[in-house]
Amino acid sequence: MAHLDGTFTLGLDLGGTNARAAAVDGDGSLLSLEKRRLRERTPEAVADVLAEVATAALRASERPPEQCIGVGVGIAGQIEARTHRVIVAPNLGWRDVDIAGLLAARLGRPVLVANDLSVAALGEVRAGAARGYTDAILVFVGSGVGSGLVLGGRLHEGARGVAGEFGHIKVKPDGRLCGCGERGCLEAYVGGHNLAARAAEAIAAGRASSLQPRLAPVLMAEDVERGAGDGDALALELRAEAAELLSVATANLVTCLNPGVLVLGGGVLLGSPWMRQKVEEGVRAMASRASAAELAIVDPSLADDAGVLGAAFLPRG
Amino acid sequence: MAHLDGTFTLGLDLGGTNARAAAVDGDGSLLSLEKRRLRERTPEAVADVLAEVATAALRASERPPEQCIGVGVGIAGQIEARTHRVIVAPNLGWRDVDIAGLLAARLGRPVLVANDLSVAALGEVRAGAARGYTDAILVFVGSGVGSGLVLGGRLHEGARGVAGEFGHIKVKPDGRLCGCGERGCLEAYVGGHNLAARAAEAIAAGRASSLQPRLAPVLMAEDVERGAGDGDALALELRAEAAELLSVATANLVTCLNPGVLVLGGGVLLGSPWMRQKVEEGVRAMASRASAAELAIVDPSLADDAGVLGAAFLPRG
Repeated sequence: MAHLDGTFTLGLDLGGTNARAAAVDGDGSLLSLEKRRLRERTPEAVADVLAEVATAALRASERPPEQCIGVGVGIAGQIEARTHRVIVAPNLGWRDVDIAGLLAARLGRPVLVANDLSVAALGEVRAGAARGYTDAILVFVGSGVGSGLVLGGRLHEGARGVAGEFGHIKVKPDGRLCGCGERGCLEAYVGGHNLAARAAEAIAAGRASSLQPRLAPVLMAEDVERGAGDGDALALELRAEAAELLSVATANLVTCLNPGVLVLGGGVLLGSPWMRQKVEEGVRAMASRASAAELAIVDPSLADDAGVLGAAFLPRG
Repeated sequence: MAHLDGTFTLGLDLGGTNARAAAVDGDGSLLSLEKRRLRERTPEAVADVLAEVATAALRASERPPEQCIGVGVGIAGQIEARTHRVIVAPNLGWRDVDIAGLLAARLGRPVLVANDLSVAALGEVRAGAARGYTDAILVFVGSGVGSGLVLGGRLHEGARGVAGEFGHIKVKPDGRLCGCGERGCLEAYVGGHNLAARAAEAIAAGRASSLQPRLAPVLMAEDVERGAGDGDALALELRAEAAELLSVATANLVTCLNPGVLVLGGGVLLGSPWMRQKVEEGVRAMASRASAAELAIVDPSLADDAGVLGAAFLPRG
């Protein structure tokens, strides 16, 4: 997988607050890394910041610009694969934005855009914990829940580009309302934001819990994890239910796709060794025996750099 | 996708009772079709029959044998993608059989083997109801339940070759025992064999049902469908539960993979317009909005020829 022909690419990671850019060579080495804070969230203003941070990363790489063979951007949101338009990006308040076109016009180069978790999965496969695998699934549990799929060595984005919306599979028909507007999604039970909200709702409804003093200003998923560690019954119950739902869903994804490696990432999983362990055990117990037999289950290795590194691999296909 | 260069391939479909073979040209036209009954089930005896039916199809095509550029075989069972060995094929009572090697030795040509539903999905994409789609899922509900996945234009077989085992995703942890030896699999509720067995078990346990006279010699899924049509409460209840479980599972697969087309096949679905309709409605309601928005849901169009046609496309990659 090494492309040590002197070429490099630019990878950009557009979050809700910051934009990061890196120049990355063909074997995944970071040549430079730059970061800028977003000012306004309008597409034009964000494109200006992206162009600025990309240009800074290009300069800081100290490589000839003509050796830069492409630009990739990862964004938390739904991306239309064919056109690289943003269908919706809740963090930015965007709907149908041609950020690829706006940035390409500023940089004078074509720009590819993909979902942030797709990009992170690609990064882990090409330069991280899933290196060497042809079929890899990244399951991410942070404030939201999602996945990135690399199948047959390539990013699987699906017919429209919205594959991997693992957080919005239905685990309880007519269940809890999810942020997406539908009911019973996995994310509504397992996502950090919802996990904490469920605890707060139970306490508000009169359930006794040692988490009560942490309600103000706002209860966090970390508080639930800490409460579970302290033996709080409510926290233990919610965490156990989340782990069970996540285990079954992840096992089923493994059964359907038979990946060589499963990467378990995101703040909730990384912050709860108990849940991480439960999910690993659950996948090994509930995925079909044939698909679990040779499955590796690993932590991500790229941490904060997954976004820029993965995005940098988009132009390499 | 047409390969009208005069080349053709041989596609073989190995069932539990018969072996079929067809010569197929690059655009999916059948040049010949032959069928032989299996005698013994030993790998050597089956390889003899496969070689015989393949040779007959080659001869009947009336094409020069040197224009035959490959041989593909579809088998109901788990196939190791790398080696094309059969890991397990319950219908044939096989475990770890190198049928590809046995057949290649007899034909003097390399042979590729894949799971029968993978092969059927490939056939529908290259020459059937899913033609023109890059990302297609075939969900099959017959006596068993399974799927075939064509992603990014290619068959997705997974790291070991056992992707698509949709019938063995878990829908009720610690639920009903499945033929695979695990508990709570989708197939244990939705597969035709299990659907009928559940009705028979309920009647044996004392539940009143108009299906009672059909218990001997053995109750079939068609009987349950007929009973539901006649208003039998037990049949209606079991059919509704099966449709609900299948709808959620299929919707979740669509959410994760974002196919352009979903092909709904197999005797239970094709024999129950009610269930077929319920699953279509359920997928449209429960898959993520973005993945359902442009999804086509179709019946298979190749019927009995899906096996040989799809297998014939294996050597074309």
